[in-house]
Amino acid sequence: MKYCSDCGTEVVKKIPVDDDRLRFVCPLCEITHYQNPKVVVGCLPTAGQQILLCRRAIEPRIGYWTIPAGFMENGETMLDGALRETREEAAAKVKGETLYRLFDIPHINQVYVLYLGELDGDFGIGPETLESRLFSEDEIPWTELAFPIVTDVLTEYFKDRKTGKFPIRVSIPSPLWAKHVGWKLPT
Amino acid sequence: MKYCSDCGTEVVKKIPVDDDRLRFVCPLCEITHYQNPKVVVGCLPTAGQQILLCRRAIEPRIGYWTIPAGFMENGETMLDGALRETREEAAAKVKGETLYRLFDIPHINQVYVLYLGELDGDFGIGPETLESRLFSEDEIPWTELAFPIVTDVLTEYFKDRKTGKFPIRVSIPSPLWAKHVGWKLPT
Repeated sequence: MKYCSDCGTEVVKKIPVDDDRLRFVCPLCEITHYQNPKVVVGCLPTAGQQILLCRRAIEPRIGYWTIPAGFMENGETMLDGALRETREEAAAKVKGETLYRLFDIPHINQVYVLYLGELDGDFGIGPETLESRLFSEDEIPWTELAFPIVTDVLTEYFKDRKTGKFPIRVSIPSPLWAKHVGWKLPT
Repeated sequence: MKYCSDCGTEVVKKIPVDDDRLRFVCPLCEITHYQNPKVVVGCLPTAGQQILLCRRAIEPRIGYWTIPAGFMENGETMLDGALRETREEAAAKVKGETLYRLFDIPHINQVYVLYLGELDGDFGIGPETLESRLFSEDEIPWTELAFPIVTDVLTEYFKDRKTGKFPIRVSIPSPLWAKHVGWKLPT
């Protein structure tokens, strides 16, 4: 942020009175422009022994497989957003949705909120998807998953399915994805 | 938003290519300025049969009782934020924190993520709090709670404590608060 979005004046970075961190503040209209994390919402569609993934048509990670998900919009609930993304990216509807997985990704200022839902009818692609496909556990392209959270969710989901219990978890992404795709993590 | 925060040019409202809703777009640098929901994080501190509430020193709802909570900051996890707010508003630490309650509040573009935690040591007040107090169930000032979500969380918490199970729920706020404080809801 360089300019005040309310009056167009160049902002300064300072710690406002009664605050303890640097903010963008407008020296003219005195508004503090807070920057806050964004919520990414999505849904893992399930179909019997299979789950639905989308191959990304856009950067980052174009060509890699992911769970339908995207930025939550103003005016919608988390589930609204998850269902919208499922429609937009996988041309799919789901039913019986339940909250399943939350992630904190503090280094990119994001929170992920993911639901599970049973695929209801057909599926396809949208403008951000090259291909959609159902995968059984032994078909998951572990080295071609787009993001760490996808690896975590699929790993947990197939374990949970064996027990029939799907507890809601919250954590940062694990290093499992980096291991699968051969990325070396900083030590 | 009236001006581009990157270049200071007056923004226009239009539907960008490959999008389906009105956004603020800069006609000069062509950046789309998305507006997204904010996350409010907090923690209900418990102490044996009691819970800790704070009486608000700031608007909105000054003088009314609430759970320590506030806007999640960039660079922190949801739990980091919940613990920070508990320190800031109730001068309190907690231990054994668990995720407890999510709310969608789509009409104000907010998501709430609340934890439960056992009060660890003393408590007090911060600049946004007039008073902090432990309440047992029969002492809860139901008509003086600050927000609908506080009514919901406390109602659910005291029910859950009887069963010893604290399932993670997600919903919009219920009309219970309006009923308690005598507000008439739109029909």
